[in-house]
Amino acid sequence: MPVDQLSTTFAALADPTRRAILARLTSGEASVTELARPFEMTLPAVSKHLKVLERAGLIARGREAQWRPCRLKAGPLKDADEWLERYRRFWEESFDRLDEYLGEIQKREKKYGRNTFQKKEDQNGRDK
Amino acid sequence: MPVDQLSTTFAALADPTRRAILARLTSGEASVTELARPFEMTLPAVSKHLKVLERAGLIARGREAQWRPCRLKAGPLKDADEWLERYRRFWEESFDRLDEYLGEIQKREKKYGRNTFQKKEDQNGRDK
Repeated sequence: MPVDQLSTTFAALADPTRRAILARLTSGEASVTELARPFEMTLPAVSKHLKVLERAGLIARGREAQWRPCRLKAGPLKDADEWLERYRRFWEESFDRLDEYLGEIQKREKKYGRNTFQKKEDQNGRDK
Repeated sequence: MPVDQLSTTFAALADPTRRAILARLTSGEASVTELARPFEMTLPAVSKHLKVLERAGLIARGREAQWRPCRLKAGPLKDADEWLERYRRFWEESFDRLDEYLGEIQKREKKYGRNTFQKKEDQNGRDK
């Protein structure tokens, strides 16, 4: 079982229904009944998801007995985003390498003509 | 069990050891033995975490029989980052509201003097 806050946040996000609930809450507060509507889920099933989100600090619930509106709390998402931040250069580097590779192909095409690779492919086809 | 890619990614990140392994791989490829060293964990325990990361597409492993170096694959982290992106305005809004509140306090301090709030607090203290 995860104990640290970041693990709790990521575990709460590891479910499409819970992510959809958070997405719904970006347009404002909602009751459990309102949140349950698009999912064709029972209220207890939705309540279970809300409890996971509440424990992770991703939503807060009003204290009114009948209508306990849920609202988004983005703080833990900010921490998750900060954790991901340091990996950004790795996916950006991958794109840089792809750019480099495409640049290399274009240079070769210019030098040897567009059909160089096509001919090579045809040859490979014949080898089979 | 999560089935969609984003859920698999978040589930893989919901563990401090797995996040530490990814952090280690930001400084280059490493073998299982090297990865296990800082954790005082058995090799099978580390291998289990590596399997979760590999299934989530967050690492790739070399094919050499003896030394199967692990390397970081940042693609799924980019998708997770893009998902978080649309929540950014919510934590930024929270900071805006805090800024607004602090600005309001400073304005009042300027108008009524710094001790206004202190006096109020003292009064509350006496009420108890």
